[in-house]
Amino acid sequence: MPVASTPSITIAQWAEQVRAGDVRAVSRAMTEIENRTGDAENLMRELFPHTGNSYCIGITGAPGTGKSTLVDRMAAHYRSQKQTVGVIAVDPSSPFTGGAILGDRIRMQGHASDSGVFIRSMATRGSLGGLSQATSDAALLLDAAGKHYVLVETVGVGQGEVEIVRLADCTLVVLVPGMGDDVQNLKAGLMEIADIFVLNKADREGADRFKQQLHAILQLVPERNGWKPPIVLTVATENQGIDELSREIERFRAHFHGKSERRAKEIALWRERLLNLLRERLVRRVVDKLATDGTLESLAAEVAERKRDPYSAVNEMLKRAGLGSER
Amino acid sequence: MPVASTPSITIAQWAEQVRAGDVRAVSRAMTEIENRTGDAENLMRELFPHTGNSYCIGITGAPGTGKSTLVDRMAAHYRSQKQTVGVIAVDPSSPFTGGAILGDRIRMQGHASDSGVFIRSMATRGSLGGLSQATSDAALLLDAAGKHYVLVETVGVGQGEVEIVRLADCTLVVLVPGMGDDVQNLKAGLMEIADIFVLNKADREGADRFKQQLHAILQLVPERNGWKPPIVLTVATENQGIDELSREIERFRAHFHGKSERRAKEIALWRERLLNLLRERLVRRVVDKLATDGTLESLAAEVAERKRDPYSAVNEMLKRAGLGSER
Repeated sequence: MPVASTPSITIAQWAEQVRAGDVRAVSRAMTEIENRTGDAENLMRELFPHTGNSYCIGITGAPGTGKSTLVDRMAAHYRSQKQTVGVIAVDPSSPFTGGAILGDRIRMQGHASDSGVFIRSMATRGSLGGLSQATSDAALLLDAAGKHYVLVETVGVGQGEVEIVRLADCTLVVLVPGMGDDVQNLKAGLMEIADIFVLNKADREGADRFKQQLHAILQLVPERNGWKPPIVLTVATENQGIDELSREIERFRAHFHGKSERRAKEIALWRERLLNLLRERLVRRVVDKLATDGTLESLAAEVAERKRDPYSAVNEMLKRAGLGSER
Repeated sequence: MPVASTPSITIAQWAEQVRAGDVRAVSRAMTEIENRTGDAENLMRELFPHTGNSYCIGITGAPGTGKSTLVDRMAAHYRSQKQTVGVIAVDPSSPFTGGAILGDRIRMQGHASDSGVFIRSMATRGSLGGLSQATSDAALLLDAAGKHYVLVETVGVGQGEVEIVRLADCTLVVLVPGMGDDVQNLKAGLMEIADIFVLNKADREGADRFKQQLHAILQLVPERNGWKPPIVLTVATENQGIDELSREIERFRAHFHGKSERRAKEIALWRERLLNLLRERLVRRVVDKLATDGTLESLAAEVAERKRDPYSAVNEMLKRAGLGSER
């Protein structure tokens, strides 16, 4: 199959280049994935059977917790062990990229001469569902490109971020002592997604108290499949605690290796991804049909003027898109 | 039409009670909305023509910025002016509610004897799209119930939150000096959504410097329709700055009153809402069909085992759901 954007190579050739770890081929694929093009879909189909080998680590936390530096140090750590690394930095709060790209350039500097590290930022283009899908494909791409570790860094702890983090084999939640005053400000959602807590900037005042409080709370949370999330203290800027963190990650990995829980989690993950993909495709189909002929716009105007209620407008959309109506 | 959950009254009677501002009728409607039931849909259809009268203010900001207290003081301010107020506190980071409900009880105490204030927390049940839809309906409900002001408070600044905030007529972004170190940590997305910046906890050290920095950045941002977002300093716990904040809100309201930009914004908003509703409905339809017979589960397992790629799995889902396939 030819590549639409670059007719001189076929999808199969492109896929070969990606699998060989060719940086330019991977970069171009990332761009296509971000733009959700047909080329991206064809490439991912080709690459998909060759995925499932890398270990994906999700890193999440509020802005200012030092995630980028932590990820940078983790990448350096894995490189020192001759492991290849892919980094995807996801920023769901920034629909308008630019900063992200600048960030890439700055971050790449430390690894510029090292082809064993691939770093890419992704910002929201359109919906959060689209970003979640693009991130998932980007992680699969780096997997197919042979990276041993794929680090997915994402800002914040909203539901959208939770969806993005869900693709990780192991999720780190990064906290900083003194942010938002107290452990009690921790969201319940964090407890649910954290496999390992990283207490970064641990040289700050109050770190020990914060750790104790967090530890006390964790006692109240039931274990998941025999795993109790450990708390690792780091000072990423000083490269402190990275070794211990990587040991905890390996311990987690070993704990779930080959377990049925891991398989169940993977199936649940794919269930979600398939639904996301389905959602995206169904909506795209309806929008293609209704946005181009102005139907969507005129229905929205009717609703804004209270001439029609939203539910009947949606039924009208379904009818006009040839998808029938429920009532 | 009878009410499924309470057959003793009709939807029309229930709608009448809501429009009269009956607290119990509104509370029950909120629960139905949160659970996305058929009763909720029927009720909202009935109420929809009676909406469009209240002024919706969105309040967003990171955890720990004091949004709840600010919203509380704003509600008290409007009450002192004999205006009725509805408050919706949205927490997209907490799929597991409980805390939210406790929070409601604590927050209601200050207004417990005042039927002119209605406060409700909403947490994510299922997808973020569902929450966004529920929040939108909740705001319409309070609108139909005759509240002069509807305050929608939401945590964080992710894309999901942006979608939720988009329903507001006026959006406040709450910042605190010294959080995340510096103004440079502000996300581009915030600049896009803020109609007014609230610098809360302004008695903290560094507030003036923070305001100056923010002011300098705002100089670089192009005006939207002749409006430059002001920066209001508040100390919500001390009830300081609330008067000025409400004056700025009224100034913003007057600035856009009757303007074509406001109409365009409303149409764009309804366009998004209709698409959300459509998405929800299409996916529910497919899931109802495929989840019950195990198709979704077995396809997800095939993909997890790399026996099938995700794109062909989605095509299979579309085919089995009777929605055809694209390719």
